[in-house]
Amino acid sequence: MNCIIGQSGGPTSVINSTLAGVINEAIKNDFDKIYLMENGISGFCEGKILEVDKEKFLNKNISDKLKQRPASILGSCRFKLAEDLNDKIYEKIFDRIKKLNIRSFIYIGGNDSMDTVMKLNKYISKHDIKEVNIIGIPKTIDNDLCEIDHSPGFGSAAKYIISTMNNIRADIDIYNLNSVTIVEIMGRNAGWLAASSLISNINRQKQIVNLLYLKEDKKSKDDIIKEIKEAFKEEKNLLIAVSEGFMDKDGYFEKEKEQSFDGGFNHPQLAGIAEKISNFIHDELSVKTRAIELNIIQRTNTLISEVDSNEAFELGARGLLISMEKTNLIPILKRKESKEYEIYYESVNPGLIANKEKIIPEEWLVTRKKLQEKITEYVSPLIQGEIHQEYENGIIKFVNLDEFIKQGKNNV
Amino acid sequence: MNCIIGQSGGPTSVINSTLAGVINEAIKNDFDKIYLMENGISGFCEGKILEVDKEKFLNKNISDKLKQRPASILGSCRFKLAEDLNDKIYEKIFDRIKKLNIRSFIYIGGNDSMDTVMKLNKYISKHDIKEVNIIGIPKTIDNDLCEIDHSPGFGSAAKYIISTMNNIRADIDIYNLNSVTIVEIMGRNAGWLAASSLISNINRQKQIVNLLYLKEDKKSKDDIIKEIKEAFKEEKNLLIAVSEGFMDKDGYFEKEKEQSFDGGFNHPQLAGIAEKISNFIHDELSVKTRAIELNIIQRTNTLISEVDSNEAFELGARGLLISMEKTNLIPILKRKESKEYEIYYESVNPGLIANKEKIIPEEWLVTRKKLQEKITEYVSPLIQGEIHQEYENGIIKFVNLDEFIKQGKNNV
Repeated sequence: MNCIIGQSGGPTSVINSTLAGVINEAIKNDFDKIYLMENGISGFCEGKILEVDKEKFLNKNISDKLKQRPASILGSCRFKLAEDLNDKIYEKIFDRIKKLNIRSFIYIGGNDSMDTVMKLNKYISKHDIKEVNIIGIPKTIDNDLCEIDHSPGFGSAAKYIISTMNNIRADIDIYNLNSVTIVEIMGRNAGWLAASSLISNINRQKQIVNLLYLKEDKKSKDDIIKEIKEAFKEEKNLLIAVSEGFMDKDGYFEKEKEQSFDGGFNHPQLAGIAEKISNFIHDELSVKTRAIELNIIQRTNTLISEVDSNEAFELGARGLLISMEKTNLIPILKRKESKEYEIYYESVNPGLIANKEKIIPEEWLVTRKKLQEKITEYVSPLIQGEIHQEYENGIIKFVNLDEFIKQGKNNV
Repeated sequence: MNCIIGQSGGPTSVINSTLAGVINEAIKNDFDKIYLMENGISGFCEGKILEVDKEKFLNKNISDKLKQRPASILGSCRFKLAEDLNDKIYEKIFDRIKKLNIRSFIYIGGNDSMDTVMKLNKYISKHDIKEVNIIGIPKTIDNDLCEIDHSPGFGSAAKYIISTMNNIRADIDIYNLNSVTIVEIMGRNAGWLAASSLISNINRQKQIVNLLYLKEDKKSKDDIIKEIKEAFKEEKNLLIAVSEGFMDKDGYFEKEKEQSFDGGFNHPQLAGIAEKISNFIHDELSVKTRAIELNIIQRTNTLISEVDSNEAFELGARGLLISMEKTNLIPILKRKESKEYEIYYESVNPGLIANKEKIIPEEWLVTRKKLQEKITEYVSPLIQGEIHQEYENGIIKFVNLDEFIKQGKNNV
């Protein structure tokens, strides 16, 4: 009984925790060969397949090392499978699955990658294939996956953003002048990460983040100016968090937007809104402005939430267990309606997650105060604890694939 | 016997270690009142003066907490004193010094701030003032201060940059396509920080940073394209470090540069070169490019080098000791010509540091290999150890001024 694991879509800081969870559980359950695909389904098609050395994995404590290592160690892809199940690629994939005698095919990814899981299962169903189960495991920093209470990867990104907002606040406060600093935060069309920055304000003497603009908002450029003028009455150095998906309701910022597209799923790359707002405020109010893009570091950072990492690991383990019996499922997290943070696990059909987006509920957005309360209650449990990082000669040290792969990196 | 301490210029991650060193030494040496100026000399003129509560400082372990807290906790300024010593501001300053009975006036800052120290001492000399000694203590992430082996603040910024380059490399490697990521690194006219990123490559199986462009270089835009094409022969995802001061020798990137100026010393703000190079490469080579500005987080970050922090603390202590006997000096670090890293302390006249810049020696720049060796030898000892950070409910926790100031934040 063999299994194979792949990672797909954008990286997170705990996507390797999930990988560790799958491998660990596969070893426990006596899988013969544990294969890894490089660069997701795209690499699988090209035969870029490695095999885990189980002894090395256990003896060298690779699980812990994978928990410290952000960004998909197996590589990734943004490859969309053909809609037509008669496309030759499906035969190619299932031939390889058969050749490698794969019982469990585990695919870690976001809403795009679950499209892959869904299509492969359609093929299984169409051809009544019994030999392999294909399971997705969720990840994304954007927290835009439906069905799940929160996405693995989101907590660590939020933790980094909240911590970084504190650093930026410490920096901008040093000068005694009027300034506006606009920080652009990832999240695609959902404002979860940008909204999380409001948690920085909790229990502080002064606001860390003064204003927040989300894709979910309907604000005009004049609203922005009005709110900034209002905020300047309270303090000199303003810090504004803006979601990369934000657009003013009149489309003023859209006009000058350059669109570039990102890989096979054709999402527009959204960066650049902070700089536009920064230039606009500078022109309108003649104050010092600065745009900061947190950029890819927010998805590949080493300030990793322990809770997030542990949950990601557990989802990996559960994904493997499910795959031993069933196909076409994704293990998910749910939160109990209890005072203390408590979660439980369920599983759902990939069709409920693939190609869908979850945004912040409208009732949270009534006022910023309400949003701050709701988001704090929601996100705080997810940023608890810090994964210890190893440094060697002052430089952070990441585990390499070579450390737990059979026969170096030779393809299978 | 009273003393006063101020912070000036841009922040660093260890500028508060230096403050801790001064306060600690002032308590040891029985200074009566230890004053702090808010927003440097500019705040001092406005009477923004606080007093340290010595008991609180000692009992609450504030030294350790200041070591964890990046960015000038006292606030800063970019205020240039008049050249004319008859300007009224000097009388105002020295009146206040007299009124507060200040024996030691300690000013922590970079090459601009040492201009302030120099001018105040010219006034002392001109008027034969005996009651106060005015001492500078160096700081800057840019490492562009003359006389000193390396600047406090540089090591922590370098450590952050090296670590972040590792994260970025982990991120960009996940996709199996040709890409160029250009990371813009601070340093004003000196390439020390950008060059430090080369240390990431030491003892690695593969290059973390493929190419480096420094202000000190003389390269044309065609050289850049040629080097990138060459580098693509070796690998698919290229990571380029570029110093914010970099300019191609033909001034191609200069042409479209928007100049904005930063405060009293009129330095141009240098950001934006990464994006220009990114657009240029994209147009020329039709590959995926991405520009990342590490931005102010590199000077206000919480991955603080223990060696850097300890040295900054020690310079603070020595500054205070010098101020008890002499004026017009700056304590500096020198490195012994020994195999193991060892430093000793001297002091120099502010005139040797003020308004001057130290750049990378020409003989280091002969080849990139040479530069990598030299910079590794030079910087490695400065990035050793990590200052432990405290988290509360998952969020990093910084010390507040209120925790060690008399009578809340009322002015003296």
